Amino acid sequence: MSLLVVGSMAFDSIKSPFGEVDRVVGGSATYFSLAASYLTPVSLVSVVGRDFPRETLEMLSARGVDLQGLKVADGVTFHWKGYYEYDLNIAHTVKTDLNVFENFAPVLPASFRESRYVFLGNIDPRLQLDILAQVREPKIVALDTMNFWIGKSPQLLREVIRSVDIVIINEAEIRELTGEFNLVKAARKLMRMGPARVVIKRGEYGVLQMADGEIFAAPAYPLETIFDPTGAGDSFAGGFMGYLASRDGAALSEMDYRLATIYGSAIASFTVEAFSTERLQGLSREEIDSRLSAFRALTEFRV
Amino acid sequence: MSLLVVGSMAFDSIKSPFGEVDRVVGGSATYFSLAASYLTPVSLVSVVGRDFPRETLEMLSARGVDLQGLKVADGVTFHWKGYYEYDLNIAHTVKTDLNVFENFAPVLPASFRESRYVFLGNIDPRLQLDILAQVREPKIVALDTMNFWIGKSPQLLREVIRSVDIVIINEAEIRELTGEFNLVKAARKLMRMGPARVVIKRGEYGVLQMADGEIFAAPAYPLETIFDPTGAGDSFAGGFMGYLASRDGAALSEMDYRLATIYGSAIASFTVEAFSTERLQGLSREEIDSRLSAFRALTEFRV
Repeated sequence: MSLLVVGSMAFDSIKSPFGEVDRVVGGSATYFSLAASYLTPVSLVSVVGRDFPRETLEMLSARGVDLQGLKVADGVTFHWKGYYEYDLNIAHTVKTDLNVFENFAPVLPASFRESRYVFLGNIDPRLQLDILAQVREPKIVALDTMNFWIGKSPQLLREVIRSVDIVIINEAEIRELTGEFNLVKAARKLMRMGPARVVIKRGEYGVLQMADGEIFAAPAYPLETIFDPTGAGDSFAGGFMGYLASRDGAALSEMDYRLATIYGSAIASFTVEAFSTERLQGLSREEIDSRLSAFRALTEFRV
Repeated sequence: MSLLVVGSMAFDSIKSPFGEVDRVVGGSATYFSLAASYLTPVSLVSVVGRDFPRETLEMLSARGVDLQGLKVADGVTFHWKGYYEYDLNIAHTVKTDLNVFENFAPVLPASFRESRYVFLGNIDPRLQLDILAQVREPKIVALDTMNFWIGKSPQLLREVIRSVDIVIINEAEIRELTGEFNLVKAARKLMRMGPARVVIKRGEYGVLQMADGEIFAAPAYPLETIFDPTGAGDSFAGGFMGYLASRDGAALSEMDYRLATIYGSAIASFTVEAFSTERLQGLSREEIDSRLSAFRALTEFRV
C-alpha cells in the first residue's frame, strides 16, 4: 500500500571526524522515501528549487517514489550546514537556509488523498495539520518533530500529536517535549496526549518502543565505521513505516511493530556507512535480509 | 563453584535527584558478592575498618559469602562521596577517603587459592596482579578498572589485562584505555592486548559484549524509577560471573556468556531501585526469574 511522506528535500554541507562534503543531497523526505522504497511504493510531498539535481529525482522515481506531490519552485533548495564531533549522536547546526521551503504550502494530488499510511516528517506543525486534513481516511499516521518546533509552536504541535497514532522522536526531544527525564515516564506522558505508540530514537544506542503494556528495546547495529549519521533517523522511520505499509490488510500485532523497528534499524545502519544517500540508494534485497539476520544474531539469547 | 572477588567495601554518601543518603554501605566487592550470591558461593577479599556494620557482614555470611579473606583493620572504612544529576550514567565524585584501604595488601586464605573463577574489582592494578599470582589454577579471570588507574598505572594495568580472560569495563573507560571512540574498534584493540572477551557497560543503554566473531547487545531494563545507580556495574559483574561459576564443569558456549550478561543485567536492575544494597540484599529466586522473563519480553522479535 502506498505510503505518503511529507518532509524536506535539501542540500547538506557536513563535516564529521571522517571527512567533509559540501552541498550533497539530503533532507528528511529524501532519506525516508529511499528507505521505504525497498518495502512499499511511496508518495512524496516536498519542494525543491531549480538547482536540485534531476538525477536524484530520476533515481527516486525509478525506485517507485511517486513525485506528483513534489513542487519544483523558482529559487534555491533548502540548505543545512552542520557538523559532528566524535559523539555522532549530536548534530551541531551551523546554518539553516529554508529558501524555497519557507513558503511551502503543500496541496495533495487527488490520488495521494487516498493514502492509508502517512508520515509527517519534521516540519512546521501547521503544515503537518494541513496535510493530515487533506488525507481522506488514514489508517496509521506517524509524526516526527524536533526541538525547534517544541519551543516555537507547542500548542500546534500538541494538536498534531493528538491526531496521530505513532510519534517517532529522539531521546533529547521527548525529554524536552514532556519535561520528563526518565524515558518510560516520558513515553507514558506522551501517550496520554493521544498516540498509542511512541518510538524513541537513541542514535547509536538503538530504539526504545512503547505501547500500552509493551516495551521493546532494539539495539543499533554496532558498525566499525560510521561516516555520517545524517539521515539515520529518517531512514529508520522510512523502513519502519515502509514495513507497516507493506503489511496492509493484515491486522498488525505487537510483533509486526517490532519487526518494523528492526527493518528501520537495519536500513538506517546502511545510511550511516557513507555520506548523503550514497549507500542507501543502491541496496539489494539480499543486503537488507542479511542485515536483518545480523540483528537476530546480535540480540539472540536463551533464558 | 566458588567465585573469588577482590574489591572495596565502603561507606557511600550519595545525592541524586531522588534523594540523599549519608554513609550507607557500598563498595564494589559488597555489590558484586551480593549479586553473585544468588547464583554461586562467593569468597570475598577486602578490608573494612572497625566502624563497618556487623549486621552487613552477618547478612553477607548468611547469603553464602565466605568472609575468611576479609580483614577488619584498626581504622576507618573507605568512604566515597558523590552525586548524580539527571543523567544517572555519570557519577560525580566529591571526595574519596581510602582510609584502611590505603595499606591493603591482601593475602589469600589457603582455600581461596583454589578458586577457579576470579573477579578483580576496580582497585590498584598492582594489587590485582598480586592476587592473581596467589590463585593456583584459575579457569576464568575477569577484570574491572577505571579512569583513575588508566591514567595513573597504565603499564601495570596492561600487565593485568594481558593475564585475564574477560575485561568488564564502562564505555567511557574503554575509549580512554584504547584511544578509540568507536566501541567495535575499541573492543577489538582491547582483545589484541590479551582478553578473549570484552563486556562494555553502557549504563541505562545496557551492555555490548564482544568476543572473536561475536557481538551481543543487551539493553538495560527500562525502569520508571531509578533511585541510585551506584553499584549497578558491580552488581552486573556479580550476576555475570556468578552465572559462569554456577555452570562450572560445563563447556561454556557463546550462549552461556550471553545468558550470563542477562543475569547480570537483571540483578543490576534491582540494585538501582533503591539506595545502597537495600533492594539487592533481599531478592527471591522468583523475582530474579521474573526479571529474566521480562528481558526476554523486552527484546523478543521474529524476523
